[in-house]
Amino acid sequence: MKGVRDQLEIFLEPESIAVIGASRTTGLGSFNIFENLVKSDYPGEVYPVNPKADEILERKAYDNIKDVKSEIDLAVVSTPRTAVVDIVNDCEELGIPAVIVIAQGFSDAGEKGKKMEETLTDIVKNSNTRILGPNTLGVQNYYNRLSTAFFPVQERIWKSISDWKSVGLVCQTGFFFRGVPGVYFGKVIDIGNSCDIDHLDALKYFKEDSETELIFLHIEGIDRGKEFLEFAKEACKEKQVLSLKTGRSEKGSAMAASHTGSMTGEDRIYDGVFKQTGITRISNLRELEIFTKSYLNFPKMEGNSIAVLTTTGAAGIITADAIEEFGLKLANLSNETIETLESLSPEWMDIKNPLDMWPAMMIGGKGIEETYGKTLNSVLEDDSVDGVVSIVPLGETPDEDPEVLEQTVNSLNYLLQKHEKPVAAWLIHEKADTRRGKELMKVKNLAVFDNIKDAVKALSFSRNKLGGLKNEI
Amino acid sequence: MKGVRDQLEIFLEPESIAVIGASRTTGLGSFNIFENLVKSDYPGEVYPVNPKADEILERKAYDNIKDVKSEIDLAVVSTPRTAVVDIVNDCEELGIPAVIVIAQGFSDAGEKGKKMEETLTDIVKNSNTRILGPNTLGVQNYYNRLSTAFFPVQERIWKSISDWKSVGLVCQTGFFFRGVPGVYFGKVIDIGNSCDIDHLDALKYFKEDSETELIFLHIEGIDRGKEFLEFAKEACKEKQVLSLKTGRSEKGSAMAASHTGSMTGEDRIYDGVFKQTGITRISNLRELEIFTKSYLNFPKMEGNSIAVLTTTGAAGIITADAIEEFGLKLANLSNETIETLESLSPEWMDIKNPLDMWPAMMIGGKGIEETYGKTLNSVLEDDSVDGVVSIVPLGETPDEDPEVLEQTVNSLNYLLQKHEKPVAAWLIHEKADTRRGKELMKVKNLAVFDNIKDAVKALSFSRNKLGGLKNEI
Repeated sequence: MKGVRDQLEIFLEPESIAVIGASRTTGLGSFNIFENLVKSDYPGEVYPVNPKADEILERKAYDNIKDVKSEIDLAVVSTPRTAVVDIVNDCEELGIPAVIVIAQGFSDAGEKGKKMEETLTDIVKNSNTRILGPNTLGVQNYYNRLSTAFFPVQERIWKSISDWKSVGLVCQTGFFFRGVPGVYFGKVIDIGNSCDIDHLDALKYFKEDSETELIFLHIEGIDRGKEFLEFAKEACKEKQVLSLKTGRSEKGSAMAASHTGSMTGEDRIYDGVFKQTGITRISNLRELEIFTKSYLNFPKMEGNSIAVLTTTGAAGIITADAIEEFGLKLANLSNETIETLESLSPEWMDIKNPLDMWPAMMIGGKGIEETYGKTLNSVLEDDSVDGVVSIVPLGETPDEDPEVLEQTVNSLNYLLQKHEKPVAAWLIHEKADTRRGKELMKVKNLAVFDNIKDAVKALSFSRNKLGGLKNEI
Repeated sequence: MKGVRDQLEIFLEPESIAVIGASRTTGLGSFNIFENLVKSDYPGEVYPVNPKADEILERKAYDNIKDVKSEIDLAVVSTPRTAVVDIVNDCEELGIPAVIVIAQGFSDAGEKGKKMEETLTDIVKNSNTRILGPNTLGVQNYYNRLSTAFFPVQERIWKSISDWKSVGLVCQTGFFFRGVPGVYFGKVIDIGNSCDIDHLDALKYFKEDSETELIFLHIEGIDRGKEFLEFAKEACKEKQVLSLKTGRSEKGSAMAASHTGSMTGEDRIYDGVFKQTGITRISNLRELEIFTKSYLNFPKMEGNSIAVLTTTGAAGIITADAIEEFGLKLANLSNETIETLESLSPEWMDIKNPLDMWPAMMIGGKGIEETYGKTLNSVLEDDSVDGVVSIVPLGETPDEDPEVLEQTVNSLNYLLQKHEKPVAAWLIHEKADTRRGKELMKVKNLAVFDNIKDAVKALSFSRNKLGGLKNEI
């Protein structure tokens, strides 16, 4: 019998797929899994099974999975729940290694459903067949453009995913498939009600998967707690693991239990599990965005001493507050750095960190490029500085000159590539995902954030970074 | 002698301005306040004062403010700090009612600067002249396109401000003038080091100002604490007041003291002040965005019972967690609402709040428009529901059909205008400020957020809303 990794691999890299319960309704808004697979760039074979159809999208339709004859790696079962048990029995008899059960209405829907789900578990016990689901959207894989979701994944989504392709996701919901604001996933395994494949299996797959560097676990509840805990400890030594445990509140916990039939447990137990294993617990989807951005763009920050470069003293104060809040500290700058700043600033100015560059630019008559460039270079060269917060409207001109932006990106790249220190930037007047923000994200070791708090939080996360550097992913 | 409001009005609505220390350097990157005023749509007279120039931008330049002769409402002093005392003396003698001192290097820069600042205070004590600053960018006013900032305010910024014009800002920094991500300000008063005009004066102005509905106070430190507290209590009965107190941390507090020479005080004292007065303390700039959006778009929420409409059970759980976190509760839906949902859903489904509409759409075969429209209408009609969280990719189609989006906006407007209940929406796969998000923001009583937590937080803030409704502002 194959190991878990091999079996999960067949789910994510099948060479042939049968869609059982393939719909005859095609076109916009039809939620047709078979159609999505056929019209996508997925390179394998796809067979429709539907006794009511002769052909679907000009491909021969089969009455039964047993009629297909060709070797099937993955069966996607998209029928009403009452038909599922017989179909999974057939799949198991045929030796199909991977079965995804899309249908809802199992342990997510009362006693009758729960019994049906137990039957599914029994069918594949000690067999070569594994089940993902029920109540799942299945899998998604950027690398072979495979998605078993019922909505088509447009090319623009795959394109967005490309920067995030090293992020792997285990979830109990389909809403992550197309990404959440600011984050996409290269590989997705939706375990649904996890009648067979569960968080532990999926984590085992991602731990070994060379295409995945950062693992995100969406958890409503976990089965096999003790084994999960032991294995997660090992996984966290090799790869960074983030987790969002939902159902923290009383109502939320009860709902999670009924949503996917999960053992939700008390929230503080999960706190303990995360602490013991080294999994980073995130509190909400926004933290997912911040931490993922930090991981993908920052090198590991070697200490907790931060230099702040700003064009506004007030923002420097807000940054100092955030630095304390997230357990970092303001760097004690070297005399050399201080002297560089003094040479740029008016005589009355007392140079200290946060470095307010405005008087140098306004009164000292130095342009923003010169002042910022020299200051940034000084703090990057300064051994007492581990990371930088930059509160400056980088690359901005009154007439939004694209050449200035390009020059800014180039000179930042020149400065930043010489050091392995993270620079978290806030552009003051705009959010991170403007054209300017996106261009600046191309700078090595630099990332742009929507606000000061997020920038500092991201730096603090890079303190514990394991492996992986931007551009090497 | 005029009251405070009259005097502040002259700062924000002057009919004539003299720029003392007007620079001869014009064009891109010159930080020329005189040039900005001349080239803007500000309708009043502007006179340059610079003894080294005969004319600037083809306007006669004066050697001294005393040479101008015409009546001057506002003098903007933009010279090195050493020239300021004499100039302010001249202004006071001329009876100029409003003087803005831009220069830095006063109580923000050691003993010598502090003494100079005390001299300024003494000059205008018991006079008809008032000073804003020093160490300020001065004022900005959307209504007459006035900005005394040294950077030009482009037309696109004024355009962005138009939706936020009823938000007034008192600050101790210039970085708010052009807005921070997601928030703009109709009127800005930067009190800088507040040698004369302080938070209390500015708050008095905004309390009476009919063009301002929401007041935001950026505070590093407050003078006249007791008087401020007494007056703020009254102001909060009439207008919603938000405040960001920076310098919470030890380092930050020390910095605030030197940044603008403020009495920063212990952070917990401010907590007490805010509680006693009714000022809403915000923790960071992101909350400013969320609360402002809530205020400008939501009606007052009359209770704390929330209905959640979602296309994904998992997001429903996350929402339930957030609802508990922010002191709200899941509404106990009426039987009528439950029955409506039952009629749309598969038989095995147990209908409860959060309302997972997916089975109705997927298995029940109802489209998203019908299911969502009927469900939303039911909960809005339901007396047990005070507000709604909507976790649905509204107006989205695979080919991004703009007509569908327009129809969605129209039908939502039709439903929502019949009730005074706030609807906080998350579009699941994208942030709030996409084209879709911006279109949806036009719907009455609805606002779009970047994530679930923000949406719920905004609802919770609308619980305490004072006055003002969207479209009436």
